[in-house]
Amino acid sequence: MADDPVELLAGIASTRAIRRYRDEPVPTDALATMMFAATRAPSGSNRQPFRFLVLRDGPKALEAKRLIGESGRSIWGGKRTADGYDRGSGVGANTPKARMARTMQHYVDHFEDAPVLVLPCLVRYREPMPTEGASIYPACQNLLLAARALGYGGVMTGFQVFVEAELRALLGIPDGVFMAATITIGKPVGGHGPVRRRPISELVYEETWDHSPEWAVDPPDARHTAAGPPKSPPTPESSR
Amino acid sequence: MADDPVELLAGIASTRAIRRYRDEPVPTDALATMMFAATRAPSGSNRQPFRFLVLRDGPKALEAKRLIGESGRSIWGGKRTADGYDRGSGVGANTPKARMARTMQHYVDHFEDAPVLVLPCLVRYREPMPTEGASIYPACQNLLLAARALGYGGVMTGFQVFVEAELRALLGIPDGVFMAATITIGKPVGGHGPVRRRPISELVYEETWDHSPEWAVDPPDARHTAAGPPKSPPTPESSR
Repeated sequence: MADDPVELLAGIASTRAIRRYRDEPVPTDALATMMFAATRAPSGSNRQPFRFLVLRDGPKALEAKRLIGESGRSIWGGKRTADGYDRGSGVGANTPKARMARTMQHYVDHFEDAPVLVLPCLVRYREPMPTEGASIYPACQNLLLAARALGYGGVMTGFQVFVEAELRALLGIPDGVFMAATITIGKPVGGHGPVRRRPISELVYEETWDHSPEWAVDPPDARHTAAGPPKSPPTPESSR
Repeated sequence: MADDPVELLAGIASTRAIRRYRDEPVPTDALATMMFAATRAPSGSNRQPFRFLVLRDGPKALEAKRLIGESGRSIWGGKRTADGYDRGSGVGANTPKARMARTMQHYVDHFEDAPVLVLPCLVRYREPMPTEGASIYPACQNLLLAARALGYGGVMTGFQVFVEAELRALLGIPDGVFMAATITIGKPVGGHGPVRRRPISELVYEETWDHSPEWAVDPPDARHTAAGPPKSPPTPESSR
């Protein structure tokens, strides 16, 4: 699988979140290829403020995985309750909601076993602002796509947010550096597969807000999901 | 060119900012393919809060292009002076700095002629924060990569920031929607080509901050640039 070239558009449409990994290390040449792809991303004024801290099996890596894993279990535990994953259709064994809950529980329970953890960071040169993500998240997407190209997979989370201070102390990440995400990478247990999203007619407008043009039509084989967290209880504005 | 399949890794490494466009419209089937790719991106909890407002040649599109074009000319004019693009090596005709200045000047001077302008937006469900970009900028990168796959090209800027209020009024974009960027798309006048960035040894760390692992080596054909704005006058922390 890793040796067949993946076509660009097909690769984009089949790079889904991979949360179950085989117990296999990721070779360093594959890591270098992924990191090269990540760093080809654009950034404001091509400043290239992105830095990628790779954590595998060194002593600090293991401690960082433990810290972030605990944070992930706590975050998912709260979300599982607050978003009602164990109510309504979450009770059935094979509903999308129940499958999502099982996958997430497995992911956080085995977080420390992820072969590679990457902390994408942004060296700030001005005050924090929402648009600064334009100089780091395109690189994160390149990384996930490149993993797909090589037969690996990954997922991006925000599990680092509640243990940032501990991680900065452990890993020497300076203040003034934005810790943008936590990405885990490994060889998927299952396959890659078509990404499911809403139909583009719900996401693409032309000329004015909320006006979907007639050309906004999915390809015939598109797979759909509204997804997002369960709708009960509603969060403010979740119905917009 | 548009008919030859582009390989995923090669596509990532050759998706550079395209700022000069041929005077050709982008067909709607190509636009639909790009938008489909954009919306396959991940987002927090797969909420899919991204919306893409496409502007081509309708009356609101033309007015939006004019507003953003004026903003772009003002932003680039200020940057050209403040960052010293016309001093030092900017004076030579063929230095990277002088080429960049010419390209940017051409881009803003012809902004209204870009065949397609896309405003990627994010429907917020909580307070603004730097990590919210994780739910919109990966989709922007998918859009730029998909354009490349089809023989088109684009570039992402922040030109909309100073005319947000006018754009909201013109296009009906609600408050509570984050206008994340401005992306222009068209058929490139020149070719695609290898993206130039810093060597990955400067961008990739392992186990601890600022420690580059020995495996962090570029492929042999990598093209490099430190780029970013000219170093004089220094901006705070630009030397980090």
